[in-house]
Amino acid sequence: MQHSQQILGTHPQPMGLDAQALADCIDACFNCVATCTACADACLAEDMVAELRHCIRTDLDCADICDATGRVISRQTQPDVSLLQAQLQACAAACKACGDECEQHAQMHAHCRVCAEACRRCEQSCNQLLQQLGSAA
Amino acid sequence: MQHSQQILGTHPQPMGLDAQALADCIDACFNCVATCTACADACLAEDMVAELRHCIRTDLDCADICDATGRVISRQTQPDVSLLQAQLQACAAACKACGDECEQHAQMHAHCRVCAEACRRCEQSCNQLLQQLGSAA
Amino acid sequence: MQHSQQILGTHPQPMGLDAQALADCIDACFNCVATCTACADACLAEDMVAELRHCIRTDLDCADICDATGRVISRQTQPDVSLLQAQLQACAAACKACGDECEQHAQMHAHCRVCAEACRRCEQSCNQLLQQLGSAA
Amino acid sequence: MQHSQQILGTHPQPMGLDAQALADCIDACFNCVATCTACADACLAEDMVAELRHCIRTDLDCADICDATGRVISRQTQPDVSLLQAQLQACAAACKACGDECEQHAQMHAHCRVCAEACRRCEQSCNQLLQQLGSAA
Repeated sequence: MQHSQQILGTHPQPMGLDAQALADCIDACFNCVATCTACADACLAEDMVAELRHCIRTDLDCADICDATGRVISRQTQPDVSLLQAQLQACAAACKACGDECEQHAQMHAHCRVCAEACRRCEQSCNQLLQQLGSAA
Repeated sequence: MQHSQQILGTHPQPMGLDAQALADCIDACFNCVATCTACADACLAEDMVAELRHCIRTDLDCADICDATGRVISRQTQPDVSLLQAQLQACAAACKACGDECEQHAQMHAHCRVCAEACRRCEQSCNQLLQQLGSAA
Repeated sequence: MQHSQQILGTHPQPMGLDAQALADCIDACFNCVATCTACADACLAEDMVAELRHCIRTDLDCADICDATGRVISRQTQPDVSLLQAQLQACAAACKACGDECEQHAQMHAHCRVCAEACRRCEQSCNQLLQQLGSAA
Repeated sequence: MQHSQQILGTHPQPMGLDAQALADCIDACFNCVATCTACADACLAEDMVAELRHCIRTDLDCADICDATGRVISRQTQPDVSLLQAQLQACAAACKACGDECEQHAQMHAHCRVCAEACRRCEQSCNQLLQQLGSAA
Protein backbone atom coordinates (compact mmCIF):
# COMPACT_ATOMS: atom_id res chain seq x y z
CA MET A 1 0.00 0.00 0.00
CA GLN A 2 3.03 2.31 0.47
CA HIS A 3 4.30 3.95 -2.73
CA SER A 4 7.81 4.95 -1.60
CA GLN A 5 9.82 2.19 -3.22
CA GLN A 6 7.81 2.42 -6.42
CA ILE A 7 8.28 6.18 -6.83
CA LEU A 8 11.97 6.25 -5.87
CA GLY A 9 12.78 4.03 -8.85
CA THR A 10 11.20 6.49 -11.29
CA HIS A 11 13.58 9.39 -10.46
CA PRO A 12 15.50 10.57 -13.56
CA GLN A 13 18.78 10.48 -11.58
CA PRO A 14 18.45 8.17 -8.58
CA MET A 15 20.94 8.54 -5.71
CA GLY A 16 22.57 5.16 -6.28
CA LEU A 17 21.52 3.87 -2.86
CA ASP A 18 19.65 0.59 -2.42
CA ALA A 19 16.05 1.65 -3.21
CA GLN A 20 14.65 -0.87 -0.72
CA ALA A 21 16.72 0.52 2.19
CA LEU A 22 15.81 4.07 1.24
CA ALA A 23 12.09 3.29 0.94
CA ASP A 24 12.14 1.36 4.22
CA CYS A 25 13.63 4.36 6.00
CA ILE A 26 11.11 6.81 4.49
CA ASP A 27 8.19 4.55 5.45
CA ALA A 28 9.63 3.96 8.93
CA CYS A 29 10.01 7.71 9.48
CA PHE A 30 6.41 8.56 8.56
CA ASN A 31 5.08 5.51 10.42
CA CYS A 32 6.94 6.89 13.45
CA VAL A 33 5.40 10.37 12.98
CA ALA A 34 1.91 8.85 13.12
CA THR A 35 2.67 6.41 15.95
CA CYS A 36 4.47 8.95 18.19
CA THR A 37 1.70 11.51 17.61
CA ALA A 38 -0.92 8.90 18.60
CA CYS A 39 1.14 7.77 21.61
CA ALA A 40 1.52 11.34 22.92
CA ASP A 41 -2.24 11.75 22.52
CA ALA A 42 -3.05 8.46 24.26
CA CYS A 43 -0.67 9.33 27.13
CA LEU A 44 -2.49 12.67 27.44
CA ALA A 45 -5.79 10.82 27.96
CA GLU A 46 -4.43 8.48 30.67
CA ASP A 47 -5.45 9.01 34.30
CA MET A 48 -1.77 9.11 35.22
CA VAL A 49 -0.90 11.79 32.65
CA ALA A 50 1.23 13.65 35.21
CA GLU A 51 3.61 10.68 35.31
CA LEU A 52 3.79 10.54 31.51
CA ARG A 53 5.13 14.05 30.90
CA HIS A 54 8.56 12.89 29.78
CA CYS A 55 7.01 10.30 27.48
CA ILE A 56 4.74 12.90 25.84
CA ARG A 57 7.60 15.35 25.32
CA THR A 58 9.82 12.62 23.85
CA ASP A 59 7.00 11.45 21.55
CA LEU A 60 6.45 14.99 20.23
CA ASP A 61 10.15 15.57 19.55
CA CYS A 62 10.44 12.20 17.82
CA ALA A 63 7.41 12.92 15.60
CA ASP A 64 8.84 16.29 14.50
CA ILE A 65 12.35 14.99 13.81
CA CYS A 66 11.10 11.89 11.93
CA ASP A 67 8.83 14.12 9.84
CA ALA A 68 11.70 16.35 8.66
CA THR A 69 13.94 13.32 8.10
CA GLY A 70 11.32 11.46 6.06
CA ARG A 71 10.90 14.51 3.83
CA VAL A 72 14.63 15.13 3.35
CA ILE A 73 15.43 11.52 2.41
CA SER A 74 12.50 11.43 -0.05
CA ARG A 75 14.57 13.77 -2.25
CA GLN A 76 17.25 12.36 -4.58
CA THR A 77 18.11 15.47 -6.63
CA GLN A 78 21.70 16.62 -6.02
CA PRO A 79 21.90 15.41 -2.40
CA ASP A 80 24.26 16.79 0.25
CA VAL A 81 25.51 13.58 1.88
CA SER A 82 26.93 15.22 5.01
CA LEU A 83 23.60 16.98 5.66
CA LEU A 84 21.69 13.72 5.18
CA GLN A 85 24.04 12.10 7.68
CA ALA A 86 23.57 14.86 10.28
CA GLN A 87 19.78 14.65 10.02
CA LEU A 88 19.74 10.83 10.07
CA GLN A 89 21.93 10.87 13.19
CA ALA A 90 19.54 13.26 14.95
CA CYS A 91 16.66 11.01 13.87
CA ALA A 92 18.30 7.82 15.14
CA ALA A 93 18.95 9.63 18.46
CA ALA A 94 15.33 10.79 18.71
CA CYS A 95 14.03 7.28 17.96
CA LYS A 96 16.41 5.71 20.49
CA ALA A 97 15.36 8.19 23.20
CA CYS A 98 11.66 7.65 22.49
CA GLY A 99 11.99 3.86 22.16
CA ASP A 100 13.86 3.71 25.51
CA GLU A 101 11.27 5.89 27.24
CA CYS A 102 8.24 4.03 25.85
CA GLU A 103 9.75 0.63 26.62
CA GLN A 104 9.84 1.52 30.31
CA HIS A 105 6.05 1.55 30.49
CA ALA A 106 5.27 -0.86 27.67
CA GLN A 107 3.72 -3.34 30.08
CA MET A 108 1.39 -0.78 31.60
CA HIS A 109 0.41 1.08 28.42
CA ALA A 110 -0.14 -0.79 25.17
CA HIS A 111 0.29 2.42 23.15
CA CYS A 112 3.81 2.77 24.54
CA ARG A 113 4.57 -0.83 23.54
CA VAL A 114 3.42 -0.21 19.96
CA CYS A 115 5.25 3.13 19.86
CA ALA A 116 8.50 1.55 21.08
CA GLU A 117 8.27 -0.92 18.18
CA ALA A 118 7.80 1.89 15.63
CA CYS A 119 10.76 3.79 17.14
CA ARG A 120 13.06 0.73 17.13
CA ARG A 121 12.21 0.01 13.50
CA CYS A 122 12.89 3.65 12.52
CA GLU A 123 16.13 3.80 14.52
CA GLN A 124 17.37 0.65 12.73
CA SER A 125 16.34 1.99 9.31
CA CYS A 126 18.21 5.26 9.94
CA ASN A 127 21.32 3.37 11.04
CA GLN A 128 21.16 1.13 7.95
CA LEU A 129 20.88 4.14 5.68
CA LEU A 130 23.77 5.83 7.51
CA GLN A 131 25.89 2.74 6.85
CA GLN A 132 25.00 2.85 3.13
CA LEU A 133 25.79 6.56 2.94
CA GLY A 134 29.10 5.97 4.73
CA SER A 135 30.23 3.25 2.35
CA ALA A 136 28.98 5.25 -0.68
CA ALA A 137 30.94 8.37 0.40
CA MET B 1 4.27 -2.80 8.84
CA GLN B 2 2.20 0.32 9.68
CA HIS B 3 1.30 0.71 13.36
CA SER B 4 -1.62 3.15 13.04
CA GLN B 5 -4.52 0.76 13.44
CA GLN B 6 -2.79 -1.08 16.29
CA ILE B 7 -2.06 2.06 18.31
CA LEU B 8 -5.47 3.70 17.75
CA GLY B 9 -7.17 0.80 19.51
CA THR B 10 -5.07 1.33 22.66
CA HIS B 11 -6.34 4.87 23.35
CA PRO B 12 -8.02 5.14 26.79
CA GLN B 13 -11.00 6.95 25.23
CA PRO B 14 -11.19 6.19 21.50
CA MET B 15 -13.21 8.53 19.26
CA GLY B 16 -15.84 5.95 18.42
CA LEU B 17 -15.02 6.00 14.72
CA ASP B 18 -14.26 2.84 12.78
CA ALA B 19 -10.59 2.25 13.67
CA GLN B 20 -9.87 0.77 10.24
CA ALA B 21 -11.17 3.85 8.39
CA LEU B 22 -9.26 6.16 10.70
CA ALA B 23 -6.01 4.19 10.36
CA ASP B 24 -6.42 3.99 6.58
CA CYS B 25 -6.75 7.76 6.39
CA ILE B 26 -3.70 8.37 8.62
CA ASP B 27 -1.59 5.96 6.57
CA ALA B 28 -2.89 7.43 3.29
CA CYS B 29 -2.00 10.95 4.45
CA PHE B 30 1.59 10.12 5.37
CA ASN B 31 2.02 7.95 2.28
CA CYS B 32 0.92 11.01 0.31
CA VAL B 33 3.46 13.25 2.11
CA ALA B 34 6.27 10.92 1.07
CA THR B 35 5.00 10.35 -2.48
CA CYS B 36 4.26 14.00 -3.26
CA THR B 37 7.65 15.04 -1.84
CA ALA B 38 9.36 12.44 -4.03
CA CYS B 39 7.29 13.44 -7.09
CA ALA B 40 8.17 17.14 -6.69
CA ASP B 41 11.81 16.13 -6.43
CA ALA B 42 11.66 13.84 -9.48
CA CYS B 43 9.90 16.58 -11.51
CA LEU B 44 12.70 18.95 -10.48
CA ALA B 45 15.27 16.58 -11.98
CA GLU B 46 13.45 16.21 -15.31
CA ASP B 47 14.85 17.90 -18.43
CA MET B 48 11.46 19.55 -18.95
CA VAL B 49 11.31 20.96 -15.41
CA ALA B 50 10.08 24.32 -16.75
CA GLU B 51 6.88 22.62 -17.93
CA LEU B 52 6.38 20.90 -14.57
CA ARG B 53 6.20 24.03 -12.40
CA HIS B 54 2.51 23.64 -11.64
CA CYS B 55 2.96 19.97 -10.81
CA ILE B 56 5.83 20.74 -8.39
CA ARG B 57 3.86 23.48 -6.66
CA THR B 58 0.79 21.26 -6.34
CA ASP B 59 2.91 18.38 -4.99
CA LEU B 60 4.46 20.62 -2.32
CA ASP B 61 1.09 21.98 -1.18
CA CYS B 62 -0.39 18.49 -1.07
CA ALA B 63 2.54 17.18 1.01
CA ASP B 64 2.18 19.99 3.56
CA ILE B 65 -1.60 19.71 3.88
CA CYS B 66 -1.54 15.88 4.13
CA ASP B 67 1.15 16.15 6.82
CA ALA B 68 -0.93 18.42 9.04
CA THR B 69 -4.05 16.33 8.41
CA GLY B 70 -2.31 13.05 9.25
CA ARG B 71 -1.11 14.53 12.54
CA VAL B 72 -4.48 16.03 13.51
CA ILE B 73 -6.46 12.83 12.85
CA SER B 74 -3.91 10.75 14.80
CA ARG B 75 -5.28 12.44 17.95
CA GLN B 76 -8.43 11.09 19.62
CA THR B 77 -8.42 13.09 22.88
CA GLN B 78 -11.42 15.46 23.11
CA PRO B 79 -11.72 16.06 19.35
CA ASP B 80 -13.30 19.12 17.72
CA VAL B 81 -15.37 17.51 14.97
CA SER B 82 -15.97 20.69 12.97
CA LEU B 83 -12.22 21.41 12.91
CA LEU B 84 -11.49 17.85 11.78
CA GLN B 85 -14.05 18.32 9.00
CA ALA B 86 -12.51 21.61 7.83
CA GLN B 87 -9.02 20.13 7.69
CA LEU B 88 -10.19 16.92 5.99
CA GLN B 89 -12.01 18.99 3.37
CA ALA B 90 -8.87 21.01 2.64
CA CYS B 91 -6.93 17.74 2.42
CA ALA B 92 -9.40 16.12 0.03
CA ALA B 93 -9.20 19.28 -2.13
CA ALA B 94 -5.38 19.23 -2.12
CA CYS B 95 -5.33 15.53 -3.07
CA LYS B 96 -7.89 16.05 -5.83
CA ALA B 97 -5.90 18.98 -7.28
CA CYS B 98 -2.63 17.04 -7.15
CA GLY B 99 -4.17 13.82 -8.47
CA ASP B 100 -5.73 15.73 -11.40
CA GLU B 101 -2.47 17.50 -12.21
CA CYS B 102 -0.29 14.37 -11.98
CA GLU B 103 -2.73 12.31 -14.04
CA GLN B 104 -2.26 14.70 -16.97
CA HIS B 105 1.35 13.59 -17.41
CA ALA B 106 1.11 10.09 -15.96
CA GLN B 107 1.96 8.55 -19.31
CA MET B 108 5.10 10.63 -19.75
CA HIS B 109 6.35 10.53 -16.15
CA ALA B 110 6.04 7.36 -14.09
CA HIS B 111 6.50 9.33 -10.84
CA CYS B 112 3.40 11.34 -11.69
CA ARG B 113 1.48 8.11 -12.30
CA VAL B 114 2.48 6.72 -8.90
CA CYS B 115 1.80 10.07 -7.22
CA ALA B 116 -1.67 10.29 -8.76
CA GLU B 117 -2.45 6.87 -7.24
CA ALA B 118 -1.31 8.00 -3.78
CA CYS B 119 -3.38 11.18 -4.08
CA ARG B 120 -6.53 9.34 -5.22
CA ARG B 121 -6.23 6.90 -2.33
CA CYS B 122 -5.81 9.75 0.16
CA GLU B 123 -8.67 11.77 -1.32
CA GLN B 124 -10.96 8.72 -0.98
CA SER B 125 -9.83 8.05 2.60
CA CYS B 126 -10.50 11.67 3.58
CA ASN B 127 -13.96 11.54 2.01
CA GLN B 128 -14.75 8.25 3.79
CA LEU B 129 -13.70 9.72 7.12
CA LEU B 130 -15.76 12.84 6.43
CA GLN B 131 -18.81 10.60 5.85
CA GLN B 132 -18.19 8.83 9.15
CA LEU B 133 -17.80 12.13 10.99
CA GLY B 134 -20.96 13.44 9.37
CA SER B 135 -23.06 10.47 10.40
CA ALA B 136 -21.51 10.46 13.89
CA ALA B 137 -22.31 14.17 14.41
CA MET C 1 13.69 40.80 11.64
CA GLN C 2 11.16 38.77 9.60
CA HIS C 3 12.02 38.39 5.92
CA SER C 4 8.57 37.43 4.58
CA GLN C 5 7.49 40.74 3.13
CA GLN C 6 10.93 41.37 1.63
CA ILE C 7 11.12 38.01 -0.15
CA LEU C 8 7.52 38.01 -1.41
CA GLY C 9 8.24 41.14 -3.44
CA THR C 10 11.10 39.46 -5.29
CA HIS C 11 8.96 36.70 -6.86
CA PRO C 12 9.15 36.79 -10.70
CA GLN C 13 5.33 36.54 -10.91
CA PRO C 14 3.76 37.72 -7.65
CA MET C 15 0.17 36.69 -6.87
CA GLY C 16 -1.23 40.21 -7.07
CA LEU C 17 -2.33 40.21 -3.45
CA ASP C 18 -1.32 42.97 -1.04
CA ALA C 19 2.21 41.88 -0.05
CA GLN C 20 1.80 43.30 3.45
CA ALA C 21 -1.37 41.26 4.14
CA LEU C 22 0.25 38.12 2.74
CA ALA C 23 3.44 38.59 4.77
CA ASP C 24 1.45 39.35 7.93
CA CYS C 25 -0.45 36.10 7.53
CA ILE C 26 2.70 34.03 6.92
CA ASP C 27 4.41 35.56 9.97
CA ALA C 28 1.26 35.14 12.09
CA CYS C 29 1.03 31.45 11.10
CA PHE C 30 4.61 30.61 12.05
CA ASN C 31 4.42 32.73 15.20
CA CYS C 32 1.36 30.64 16.09
CA VAL C 33 3.25 27.37 15.44
CA ALA C 34 5.94 28.42 17.92
CA THR C 35 3.54 29.86 20.51
CA CYS C 36 1.08 26.93 20.45
CA THR C 37 3.97 24.44 20.66
CA ALA C 38 5.36 26.32 23.67
CA CYS C 39 1.90 26.60 25.29
CA ALA C 40 1.24 22.86 24.94
CA ASP C 41 4.63 22.23 26.53
CA ALA C 42 4.05 24.69 29.38
CA CYS C 43 0.59 23.16 30.05
CA LEU C 44 2.28 19.75 30.18
CA ALA C 45 4.57 20.99 32.97
CA GLU C 46 1.73 22.43 35.08
CA ASP C 47 0.68 20.67 38.30
CA MET C 48 -2.87 20.62 36.99
CA VAL C 49 -1.94 19.03 33.65
CA ALA C 50 -4.92 16.66 33.89
CA GLU C 51 -7.28 19.65 33.63
CA LEU C 52 -5.38 21.05 30.63
CA ARG C 53 -5.84 18.07 28.30
CA HIS C 54 -8.20 19.86 25.96
CA CYS C 55 -5.92 22.90 25.84
CA ILE C 56 -2.88 20.75 24.96
CA ARG C 57 -4.74 18.91 22.22
CA THR C 58 -6.08 22.16 20.76
CA ASP C 59 -2.59 23.73 20.87
CA LEU C 60 -1.07 20.77 19.01
CA ASP C 61 -3.75 20.81 16.29
CA CYS C 62 -3.40 24.58 15.88
CA ALA C 63 0.40 24.32 15.55
CA ASP C 64 0.14 21.64 12.84
CA ILE C 65 -2.55 23.44 10.84
CA CYS C 66 -0.79 26.84 11.05
CA ASP C 67 2.44 25.19 9.93
CA ALA C 68 0.90 23.76 6.76
CA THR C 69 -0.96 27.01 6.08
CA GLY C 70 2.15 29.16 6.51
CA ARG C 71 4.00 26.97 4.02
CA VAL C 72 1.20 26.91 1.44
CA ILE C 73 0.67 30.69 1.43
CA SER C 74 4.44 31.30 1.13
CA ARG C 75 4.14 30.01 -2.44
CA GLN C 76 3.01 32.35 -5.24
CA THR C 77 3.71 30.19 -8.31
CA GLN C 78 0.48 29.25 -10.16
CA PRO C 79 -1.74 29.24 -7.06
CA ASP C 80 -5.01 27.31 -6.70
CA VAL C 81 -7.25 29.93 -5.08
CA SER C 82 -9.96 27.51 -3.93
CA LEU C 83 -7.35 25.31 -2.22
CA LEU C 84 -5.83 28.35 -0.49
CA GLN C 85 -9.32 29.29 0.71
CA ALA C 86 -10.04 25.81 2.09
CA GLN C 87 -6.75 25.71 3.99
CA LEU C 88 -7.13 29.28 5.29
CA GLN C 89 -10.64 28.44 6.53
CA ALA C 90 -9.34 25.40 8.40
CA CYS C 91 -6.58 27.57 9.86
CA ALA C 92 -8.96 30.33 10.98
CA ALA C 93 -11.12 27.63 12.63
CA ALA C 94 -8.10 26.09 14.41
CA CYS C 95 -6.96 29.51 15.66
CA LYS C 96 -10.47 30.40 16.85
CA ALA C 97 -10.81 27.09 18.72
CA CYS C 98 -7.38 27.46 20.33
CA GLY C 99 -7.87 31.15 21.13
CA ASP C 100 -11.24 30.40 22.77
CA GLU C 101 -9.80 27.54 24.80
CA CYS C 102 -6.70 29.44 25.96
CA GLU C 103 -8.70 32.53 26.85
CA GLN C 104 -10.69 30.50 29.38
CA HIS C 105 -7.60 30.06 31.57
CA ALA C 106 -5.68 33.16 30.57
CA GLN C 107 -5.94 34.55 34.09
CA MET C 108 -4.54 31.42 35.69
CA HIS C 109 -1.84 30.61 33.14
CA ALA C 110 0.20 33.39 31.53
CA HIS C 111 1.24 31.06 28.68
CA CYS C 112 -2.41 30.62 27.75
CA ARG C 113 -2.86 34.40 27.75
CA VAL C 114 0.09 34.86 25.37
CA CYS C 115 -1.05 31.95 23.22
CA ALA C 116 -4.59 33.35 22.94
CA GLU C 117 -3.07 36.59 21.60
CA ALA C 118 -1.03 34.72 18.97
CA CYS C 119 -4.11 32.74 17.93
CA ARG C 120 -6.34 35.84 17.66
CA ARG C 121 -3.75 37.61 15.52
CA CYS C 122 -3.44 34.58 13.23
CA GLU C 123 -7.21 34.11 12.97
CA GLN C 124 -7.59 37.77 11.94
CA SER C 125 -4.76 37.51 9.40
CA CYS C 126 -6.33 34.43 7.83
CA ASN C 127 -9.71 36.13 7.62
CA GLN C 128 -8.14 39.24 6.04
CA LEU C 129 -6.37 37.11 3.44
CA LEU C 130 -9.59 35.22 2.75
CA GLN C 131 -11.33 38.55 2.08
CA GLN C 132 -8.57 39.57 -0.35
CA LEU C 133 -8.77 36.21 -2.12
CA GLY C 134 -12.56 36.51 -2.32
CA SER C 135 -12.49 39.96 -3.90
CA ALA C 136 -9.64 38.95 -6.25
CA ALA C 137 -11.55 35.88 -7.46
CA MET D 1 5.09 40.98 17.12
CA GLN D 2 6.70 37.60 17.88
CA HIS D 3 5.53 35.94 21.09
CA SER D 4 8.38 33.47 21.63
CA GLN D 5 10.35 35.30 24.29
CA GLN D 6 7.19 36.27 26.16
CA ILE D 7 5.81 32.72 26.32
CA LEU D 8 9.11 31.03 27.17
CA GLY D 9 9.29 33.02 30.40
CA THR D 10 5.90 31.72 31.55
CA HIS D 11 6.92 28.02 31.61
CA PRO D 12 6.49 26.49 35.10
CA GLN D 13 10.01 25.01 34.92
CA PRO D 14 12.11 26.90 32.36
CA MET D 15 15.24 25.24 30.96
CA GLY D 16 17.66 27.67 32.56
CA LEU D 17 18.96 28.90 29.23
CA ASP D 18 19.06 32.59 28.33
CA ALA D 19 15.44 33.20 27.22
CA GLN D 20 16.55 35.79 24.65
CA ALA D 21 18.95 33.37 22.93
CA LEU D 22 16.33 30.63 22.94
CA ALA D 23 13.60 32.92 21.56
CA ASP D 24 15.97 34.28 18.90
CA CYS D 25 16.71 30.77 17.72
CA ILE D 26 13.02 29.75 17.60
CA ASP D 27 12.13 32.91 15.65
CA ALA D 28 15.13 32.47 13.32
CA CYS D 29 14.11 28.85 12.61
CA PHE D 30 10.52 29.68 11.65
CA ASN D 31 11.61 32.78 9.72
CA CYS D 32 13.90 30.44 7.80
CA VAL D 33 11.03 27.98 7.11
CA ALA D 34 9.00 30.79 5.52
CA THR D 35 11.92 32.37 3.65
CA CYS D 36 13.32 29.09 2.25
CA THR D 37 9.82 27.99 1.19
CA ALA D 38 9.32 31.33 -0.60
CA CYS D 39 12.80 31.17 -2.18
CA ALA D 40 12.21 27.65 -3.54
CA ASP D 41 8.93 28.88 -4.98
CA ALA D 42 10.46 32.01 -6.53
CA CYS D 43 13.29 29.91 -8.04
CA LEU D 44 10.64 27.62 -9.51
CA ALA D 45 9.07 30.60 -11.31
CA GLU D 46 12.36 31.85 -12.78
CA ASP D 47 13.03 31.40 -16.53
CA MET D 48 16.30 29.68 -15.63
CA VAL D 49 14.66 27.18 -13.25
CA ALA D 50 16.76 24.35 -14.72
CA GLU D 51 19.90 26.02 -13.36
CA LEU D 52 18.33 26.50 -9.92
CA ARG D 53 17.64 22.82 -9.15
CA HIS D 54 20.27 22.58 -6.45
CA CYS D 55 19.07 25.81 -4.86
CA ILE D 56 15.46 24.58 -4.77
CA ARG D 57 16.43 21.24 -3.25
CA THR D 58 18.62 22.94 -0.63
CA ASP D 59 15.82 25.42 0.20
CA LEU D 60 13.31 22.60 0.72
CA ASP D 61 15.65 20.61 2.98
CA CYS D 62 16.48 23.72 5.00
CA ALA D 63 12.78 24.56 5.47
CA ASP D 64 11.98 21.05 6.72
CA ILE D 65 14.94 20.85 9.11
CA CYS D 66 14.38 24.37 10.51
CA ASP D 67 10.72 23.51 11.06
CA ALA D 68 11.48 20.44 13.17
CA THR D 69 14.22 22.31 15.05
CA GLY D 70 12.00 25.29 15.84
CA ARG D 71 9.36 22.95 17.25
CA VAL D 72 11.79 20.90 19.34
CA ILE D 73 13.50 23.92 20.94
CA SER D 74 10.10 25.50 21.74
CA ARG D 75 9.72 22.76 24.39
CA GLN D 76 11.30 23.18 27.84
CA THR D 77 9.72 20.24 29.71
CA GLN D 78 12.34 17.64 30.71
CA PRO D 79 14.68 18.27 27.77
CA ASP D 80 17.19 15.76 26.38
CA VAL D 81 20.26 17.96 25.88
CA SER D 82 22.15 15.56 23.61
CA LEU D 83 19.12 15.27 21.31
CA LEU D 84 18.76 19.05 21.18
CA GLN D 85 22.44 19.26 20.25
CA ALA D 86 22.13 16.69 17.45
CA GLN D 87 19.12 18.48 15.93
CA LEU D 88 20.71 21.93 16.28
CA GLN D 89 23.86 20.66 14.56
CA ALA D 90 21.81 19.30 11.66
CA CYS D 91 19.99 22.64 11.49
CA ALA D 92 23.18 24.71 11.48
CA ALA D 93 24.50 22.45 8.68
CA ALA D 94 21.29 22.87 6.65
CA CYS D 95 21.38 26.67 7.07
CA LYS D 96 25.08 26.82 6.13
CA ALA D 97 24.48 24.73 3.00
CA CYS D 98 21.48 26.83 1.96
CA GLY D 99 23.17 30.14 2.81
CA ASP D 100 26.25 29.14 0.76
CA GLU D 101 24.12 28.06 -2.20
CA CYS D 102 21.87 31.15 -2.18
CA GLU D 103 24.83 33.50 -1.80
CA GLN D 104 26.25 32.27 -5.09
CA HIS D 105 23.36 33.80 -7.01
CA ALA D 106 22.44 36.61 -4.64
CA GLN D 107 23.38 39.22 -7.22
CA MET D 108 21.21 37.70 -9.91
CA HIS D 109 18.18 36.77 -7.77
CA ALA D 110 17.02 39.06 -4.97
CA HIS D 111 15.07 36.19 -3.33
CA CYS D 112 18.33 34.27 -2.96
CA ARG D 113 19.97 37.31 -1.34
CA VAL D 114 17.14 37.62 1.20
CA CYS D 115 17.13 33.85 1.78
CA ALA D 116 20.89 33.79 2.38
CA GLU D 117 20.40 36.44 5.10
CA ALA D 118 17.68 34.37 6.81
CA CYS D 119 19.89 31.26 6.65
CA ARG D 120 22.95 33.07 8.07
CA ARG D 121 20.91 34.46 10.95
CA CYS D 122 19.48 31.01 11.72
CA GLU D 123 22.88 29.31 11.46
CA GLN D 124 24.31 31.82 13.95
CA SER D 125 21.36 31.42 16.34
CA CYS D 126 21.76 27.63 16.30
CA ASN D 127 25.49 27.92 16.98
CA GLN D 128 24.86 30.34 19.86
CA LEU D 129 22.33 27.99 21.40
CA LEU D 130 24.74 25.07 20.96
CA GLN D 131 27.37 27.04 22.88
CA GLN D 132 24.89 27.73 25.71
CA LEU D 133 23.88 24.07 25.83
CA GLY D 134 27.55 23.05 25.88
CA SER D 135 28.44 25.31 28.79
CA ALA D 136 25.24 24.36 30.66
CA ALA D 137 25.99 20.62 30.31
